[in-house]
Amino acid sequence: TLAAPAIAQSAPKVSWRLTSSFPKSLDTIFGGAEVLAKAVSDATDGAFQIQVFAAGELVPGLQAADAVTNGTLEMAHTCSYYYVGKDPAFCWGTAAPFGLNGRMLNAWFYHGGGNELLNEFYAKYNFIGLPGGNTGTQMGGWFRKEIKTVADLNGLKMRIGGIGGRVLAKLGAVPQQIAGGDIYPALEKGTIDGAEWVGPYDDEKLGFYKVAPHYYYPGWWEGGAALHFFINKAKWAELPKAYQAILTSAAAHANVDMQAKYDAKNPAALKRLVQAGAQLHPFPGEVMDASLKASIELYAEISKENEPFKKLHDAVMAFRNDEYLWWQVAELGYDAFMIRARGR
Amino acid sequence: TLAAPAIAQSAPKVSWRLTSSFPKSLDTIFGGAEVLAKAVSDATDGAFQIQVFAAGELVPGLQAADAVTNGTLEMAHTCSYYYVGKDPAFCWGTAAPFGLNGRMLNAWFYHGGGNELLNEFYAKYNFIGLPGGNTGTQMGGWFRKEIKTVADLNGLKMRIGGIGGRVLAKLGAVPQQIAGGDIYPALEKGTIDGAEWVGPYDDEKLGFYKVAPHYYYPGWWEGGAALHFFINKAKWAELPKAYQAILTSAAAHANVDMQAKYDAKNPAALKRLVQAGAQLHPFPGEVMDASLKASIELYAEISKENEPFKKLHDAVMAFRNDEYLWWQVAELGYDAFMIRARGR
Repeated sequence: TLAAPAIAQSAPKVSWRLTSSFPKSLDTIFGGAEVLAKAVSDATDGAFQIQVFAAGELVPGLQAADAVTNGTLEMAHTCSYYYVGKDPAFCWGTAAPFGLNGRMLNAWFYHGGGNELLNEFYAKYNFIGLPGGNTGTQMGGWFRKEIKTVADLNGLKMRIGGIGGRVLAKLGAVPQQIAGGDIYPALEKGTIDGAEWVGPYDDEKLGFYKVAPHYYYPGWWEGGAALHFFINKAKWAELPKAYQAILTSAAAHANVDMQAKYDAKNPAALKRLVQAGAQLHPFPGEVMDASLKASIELYAEISKENEPFKKLHDAVMAFRNDEYLWWQVAELGYDAFMIRARGR
Repeated sequence: TLAAPAIAQSAPKVSWRLTSSFPKSLDTIFGGAEVLAKAVSDATDGAFQIQVFAAGELVPGLQAADAVTNGTLEMAHTCSYYYVGKDPAFCWGTAAPFGLNGRMLNAWFYHGGGNELLNEFYAKYNFIGLPGGNTGTQMGGWFRKEIKTVADLNGLKMRIGGIGGRVLAKLGAVPQQIAGGDIYPALEKGTIDGAEWVGPYDDEKLGFYKVAPHYYYPGWWEGGAALHFFINKAKWAELPKAYQAILTSAAAHANVDMQAKYDAKNPAALKRLVQAGAQLHPFPGEVMDASLKASIELYAEISKENEPFKKLHDAVMAFRNDEYLWWQVAELGYDAFMIRARGR
C-alpha cells in the first residue's frame, strides 16, 4: 500500500559558491560550511556542488550577507549579529545579552516560531536563513587585570562588538572593533585591556593567555551563539524542490555537528589553557547584575524606535522565560549534581 | 575551477518499512521517524520511500531491533537501551545512570568516537545505528508518597526498567516492568508506588499527577536519552551512496529536531502539571549520592564479566569527566545565573 513514488528525475547540475565569514584556521566554525557542502554533494552524486570560500577569498568576512543580498554569491555561512550595523534586529538570529542558550535557540528556531520570524525579517535583505551551527555558551574573554567591581569596567577598552558592546558601554567600558589577527598585539601592548573571542578551543589558537591571563565566564552576551546559512531568495527559488530539501537537512546536519564538535573539543583545550597559565574567574555577581540591568535598558531604548527589533526581542524573551522555568528543574538539577560529583 | 560534477543518475525507487518503538500519541518521539521519512522522500522526489509504522502495527515496540537484525524490516526508530536484556552494553547508546547529558551525547557520538564504538558493538546484531533524537534530561518520575531518605526506597515498587532499575534494586527498590498504558491503573490501585516515564510533555498525557502527585527530578538514569535509527547492514549496503548520504543527514536532522521539539513543548506542560496539582521535588541529596555509589558498583560488576560493556563504559565515563570539567564553567555559569535572574 505504498503510494506510487514520483517519477525519478535526473539531478540537474548546480554549482554554487558559499563564502564563510571565518578563516580556515577556525576548523569548528569554518568546518560547518564544509559539512554542509559535503552532505549536499554526497546526496546528489556530486550534481549539486557548493564551493566553500574562506573569509576574504571572495568577500571580506563581515560582508558575507551583502554578497548574498545582491546575488554575487548564492549563499554564506555567517553570524546574523555581524550585521547589527544595518539593523540591531539582526542580533536575534545569533545571540543577544541574556538571551537563549544553544539548545533553547534550536527550540525557538525549529519549534517556537523563530525561523518564521527571522525569515520575515531577513526577507528585506533578499535572503532566507537556515540555522547552521552553534558554539554553545561562550567565554567572557581575556583581561590583563582582574575585574572585581562594576567600577573596574569604567574606561576599560575591550574588544567586543555588537549589542554586547553597547551594554558594556552603558557601564563605562569602551568597546573596540578589532579583527581577530590584531587582537594579540593590542592586548600585548596594552592598547586594549581585554578581548572576547569564542571559547577555549578557538581562543587557545590565538594565544591570549600569554598576555591577558584572566579568563572570565560566562559570556553573558552569547549564552549560545548560532550560525546561519543565508541563501539568496531568487537562487533558492530556482532550486528543484529536492535540492531545497537536501539543503535543509544538510543545514540541520551541520547545525548539530558543529555544536557536537565544540562540545568535544573545548574540555581538552580548557585543560591546556589552565596548565599554560590561564586564570579562570566567574564575573562578579555585581557585574552580572549590572550588565543584565543595562541590557534591559538598552533593549527598551532600541525597541522604542525599531519595530522589527521589538517583535523579535519580545518573542525571544517570552520564550526564554518559559524555557528557564523548565531548565531549572531537570537539566540544571542533573548538571549541577554531576559537577558536584566530579571525581567520585 | 569547479571539479566536474559526476554524471547525474536517475534515482532508483526504493521502498522501506520502519517500525517505531512508540505509539503515535507520543508525537515528539514518534515524530522523529516521520521527520526522517519526509526528509528522505523530499530529497529524492519521492523515489526513496520509508513507510513509518507505530509500535505494534508490524512488531511490538520492544522487538523493533530484532526485526532489523533478522531483516524483516529495513529499519527501526528505537532506544538502544530497550535491548539490555540481550546485552547490558546496549545501554550506552541511549542513556545510563549518571552518564552524558543530551548535548554531550551528541559530542560523543559525532566527535568523540561514540558512533564508531557503538557500531562496532551493533555489528553483532546485524545493524548500524544513526543517532536520531534526544529527550533531554528526563524527570525522575511520579510517586504516591514523598521520598525523603534512602530508607524510603526500601521495598518501593517502581515502574522502571533497564540499568536504572538495577541501580535502584541495590538500594532496596523493586523495579517493575509495566507497559505505558498499564501504569496509571497500577499507580491508582497502589499496585506500584511510583513510575518513571519521560518528562512533562509526555507525562502529562498519561495523567499520573492525579494518582501519584509527587514529581521528582532529575531522572539521574537518563541525563539525556538518545534515540537511534537502526538499519539492517545488508539493506544499508544495497543503497546507492547518495541515498546513504541522504539518510545520514535526515537522521541528524531528526536528531536536532526532536530535542528542539521537546525543549519547546516541556515548559508549558510543566506549568500545566503544576497548576493541576503536581508537586515538584528534587531527589534528596542522600538519595542522589547513594544512587551514584550504587551505579558505580553495578558498572564494576557488569564490567568484570562483559568486555563490550566495559569498553563502552570506560569510553563514556572518561568523556563525561572531561565534559563536566568544561560544563561547570560557561554553560552552567550562564544557566545558573539566568535561573536566579528569572522575573527580572
